[in-house]
Formats: sequence, C-alpha cells, structure tokens
Amino acid sequence: MYRMERDFSGLLAALKVTGEQVDVALGALLPKPAGLQARVQEAMRYAIFAGGKRLRPFLLLQSATLFGVPPEQALRAAAAIECVHTYSLVHDDLPCMDDDDLRRGRPTTHRAFDEATAVLAGDALLTVAFEILADAKTHPSGEVRARLVAELARAGGMLGMIGGQMIDIEASTQGFGVDEVILLQRLKTGALFEFCCVAGPILAEAGTQHENRLREYAGDFGLVFQITDDLLDVLSTAEKTGKAVGKDAQQGKATLVSLLGVDAARAKAENLAHAASDRIASYGGASSHLQALPPYLLHRES
Amino acid sequence: MYRMERDFSGLLAALKVTGEQVDVALGALLPKPAGLQARVQEAMRYAIFAGGKRLRPFLLLQSATLFGVPPEQALRAAAAIECVHTYSLVHDDLPCMDDDDLRRGRPTTHRAFDEATAVLAGDALLTVAFEILADAKTHPSGEVRARLVAELARAGGMLGMIGGQMIDIEASTQGFGVDEVILLQRLKTGALFEFCCVAGPILAEAGTQHENRLREYAGDFGLVFQITDDLLDVLSTAEKTGKAVGKDAQQGKATLVSLLGVDAARAKAENLAHAASDRIASYGGASSHLQALPPYLLHRES
Repeated sequence: MYRMERDFSGLLAALKVTGEQVDVALGALLPKPAGLQARVQEAMRYAIFAGGKRLRPFLLLQSATLFGVPPEQALRAAAAIECVHTYSLVHDDLPCMDDDDLRRGRPTTHRAFDEATAVLAGDALLTVAFEILADAKTHPSGEVRARLVAELARAGGMLGMIGGQMIDIEASTQGFGVDEVILLQRLKTGALFEFCCVAGPILAEAGTQHENRLREYAGDFGLVFQITDDLLDVLSTAEKTGKAVGKDAQQGKATLVSLLGVDAARAKAENLAHAASDRIASYGGASSHLQALPPYLLHRES
Repeated sequence: MYRMERDFSGLLAALKVTGEQVDVALGALLPKPAGLQARVQEAMRYAIFAGGKRLRPFLLLQSATLFGVPPEQALRAAAAIECVHTYSLVHDDLPCMDDDDLRRGRPTTHRAFDEATAVLAGDALLTVAFEILADAKTHPSGEVRARLVAELARAGGMLGMIGGQMIDIEASTQGFGVDEVILLQRLKTGALFEFCCVAGPILAEAGTQHENRLREYAGDFGLVFQITDDLLDVLSTAEKTGKAVGKDAQQGKATLVSLLGVDAARAKAENLAHAASDRIASYGGASSHLQALPPYLLHRES
C-alpha cells in the first residue's frame, strides 16, 4: 500500500545530501594516514568510505533538526556513530565471526589488508568515536558530552550491540522464538539506532520526555529495519544487496521472517512503520523525513 | 646499585593492597554474567581477573593521591584503565596477532573461550572503560569526565596504543633504529602510562603545570618499564614471567636491548629511573611510592 501512495523523492534527496556532508565530516575527523602507523589509518578509511548509506548519521541529524541543534555539533555526533557502526562491521566480517569476503560488493577490510590490521582498525574506529564525542567542539557543555559518551557506550556495549552480537553467534545453536529474536535485534541493531534518535534531544538538552519519545520511535524503527533486512535476505539477490543472501537460513538462525512467515512479518513491519511515524508526527514538518523513513524501508532493495 | 640500597617492602605492600581494592572495584563495575549474552560477560571477567599486577591502576591511584582526589573517584578511573589494558592484551593474544596460548601461565581468552568471544570481550572491555569514565560517579564535573574520556581515547587510539601496536606488527620487517623503537614504545605502552599519571591532576583540576610534570614522569617510567621488560625477555625464563620468552629476537624485532646491548640498556634504564623519581620528588612524602616504582622495576622478575 505504502508502495503506491507515497513519494519518497524528498527523503532520497535528503539522504544523498546528508551522506555527502557526513563523508566530508568523516574525512576531516579521521586522521590522514601518516608515519609508521599509516597502515591502520588507511584501513580505517577503507572501511568507512565503503559506500554506506549513512542511515545512522541521517537519523541522528534528523533527530537534531527537530530540536534546532547546530549542524556542526550534530555532524560530529553523526560521524561518531558511523565510526562505531563501521567498527562493528569490520569485526563482524572477520574469519572468526561471519567470515565474509565481500561487503557492499568489495573486499572486506581483513581481505583488503589483513586480519591483524582489521582488528586494530576496528578498535581504532571505536576509540575515535569517543574521542570525537568528548571533544569540546561537539558541545560547549561537558555534561552533555559526557552524557553522549555514556549513552554511546551503553548502546555499543555488552548490554547493547556487543551483547546482541554474542546472542547472534549463539543463535544458530539455540531454538529462539519471537521474543528472543526481538531481544537480539533490539540489542544488536536497535541500540545504535536508539543512540542516533536520542542524540538530538540530548544535544539540545530538551529533557526526558522528548528523549523517551525519540527512543520509542527508534525501537519501532529498528524492528522495521530488521524485518525488512530479513525479507531482503530471503527474497533478494546478492547483486542487489551487494552481500551474500540467504545466510541466516543456511546458518539455521531464526528471524522474524522465518518464525512468522513472509506475509505476517511484512504486515508486522507495516504496522510498526505506521506506529513509528505517528509517534513523532507532533513535531510537524521538521519530522517529515523521520516520518517517511520507516515506510520507505518497507520497499528498499538494499 | 639500587639493588643493594633500597628497601621496597613499603611499595610492595601498597601494590598488594591497591591490587585488592582494584579487583573489588572491577568486580562491582563489570556486569555479572546473565541472560543470553552471559558468555561475553564471562570472558570479560576471565580476562580481567587473570592475576595481573594492576600496575596501571596503582600508578593512577598514586597520581591521584598527590592531589587529594577522593579514592572512590580514582578507583573508577583505575578500573577503566585496567579494562583498556586488558582489552589490548585479549586482542593482542589473538591468532592473527601474537597468537599466544598462555598469559600469566593460563590459557589466553580465545583459548579458554573462542576467537569470536575474545574479539567481542575485548571490544566490550574497551567500551565499558568509557562508560565508567563518563558516569557521574567518576567526578561531579562533566568537563572533567569529558576530559578523561578524551585523554583515554587519545592514549588508546591510533596515535597512542593502537598506533604502537600497528608499528609493532610491522617492526619485524623493518630495520628499526633506536628512535623508531622509542617511538613505538612511547605509543604502545607509554601512552596508557601517561593517562594513568595525568589522571590525578585532571581529576583534581590541578592545572597544566602539574599535568605536564606527571606526563614527563610517565614518559621516563614507560621507557624504564619497556627496557626492563625487554631485559626479562632476553634474560629470564618462561617460568618466572608466565609467558613465552625470547619472542622478540625470534621475530626479528629490534628492542633497545638488542640495539644497545644488555649493559648499555640497563644503564639507560637506571638513568631514566633516577630522572623519573627526581621529577616528582618535590611532591614530598605523598610521592614516595611513585619515586620508588622506577628503581623497583630495575630488578623485577616478572
């Protein structure tokens, strides 16, 4: 239904512009390869400039727009979250983890460099994210910077993304049901989305009520993202997504699609997309991209 | 000379007490293994409770003592630095890095668990360090917490420890001289020591002059630590150090000992130990342990 009704051209244009702005910010914030340790800095740049959609930075910048956060502050936080996302991909691709040779159609970091460099580049991307957030350029208030650091550490840590990764590794040997799969996804991918969405009200010191509303949006958004990702894994081709498809099923991992079936999973995603958009409609026109994003995910092709 | 003159019993007693305090703090700050992600939390605890000497926390707590920092604040920062040190060991031991099976006489984390869990446990230890520092319990001022985060990120990042690791990996294929080896060590091990030593004046908001004096102490201390570590690698046995010895020579890596010879390297370490102690003598009795530590390193056996 969404497919017919909506025009996503404004959203797509904004995604493109944001992606370019984020790439400029990342280019300036990451060190230029130099000196004896140039190799790890080259690997960091290789991993981060891999043609990603910059979805997390986009969410963060849109959340910041709702509250009038200065773009130069929001861009730094957006760069930080992209560093954390990228580090997680670099480590996730390692032979001891998912053992992927390709990501977005080109060699993964450990294939382009080597495993040791990939481990270090991931470690360095995680570390630099906190360095960016803690720098006074991100916000004049140390309290706000420390809150961002604490929030990102929780989102990325063992009760967030890393915990989700651990559960995901064990998932193939366990008979997960819907509740476990939802928990896994809330941690593995949802926690970083939540950071993106709550960064706006934190940077604006807008208070708990706004933070909670954005957290709820992020929760729904994250599940829509995951279900549509799982649908792509089942229905799409490697050519379109730029990565191997059908991997979850091969590894015996339960997903909401395998547990509920394609049609019910798609219906659930549509309901959640509605709910997410509704939660932030009261912010008016400033939230138009955030409102359009969940329905857009329903018919993405990569 | 030092060997005959000095009595280190006070220092050793303080090291022991501090170690116990740090272990209690770490036990409380790291999550209890629970839920579906318990395995990564178990691996974090396995790695951190491995019988380490807690030398970095000791430095940090002694630096804090000079400036009257409340112990509960200093202990949190000390726990954070131990998490970062431990994560670096876990990743350093991986098959794609040093490929070590033993550390302090027991299986390394990836041997006791598996590689994927070790990668994640390392990532989680790094992440939790920033979470601990950013928490309001570490210091009432957000500015101070953000400064600690920024300082730790720099010390641990690609222009600090990770950069040093990268240089170390490439060291075996390059003909390093004394300058390169000193740079490598200042980054690889020196940067974290510097964080420990500067954390005291940062927590106390004591100002740049004190910070610089402690940074200089840390620089000398770090080289003494490294030279005596290299001497152990050449002269000691695996039994005493709890890890493989002679590895640097096998890998063709230059050290200050291989470049200068045992006697000149030891003389250099003795001079640096003198210099380090002198730099902080003006703090009087409160600096007695920091003054004793560099000479003590000169005849450590592990």
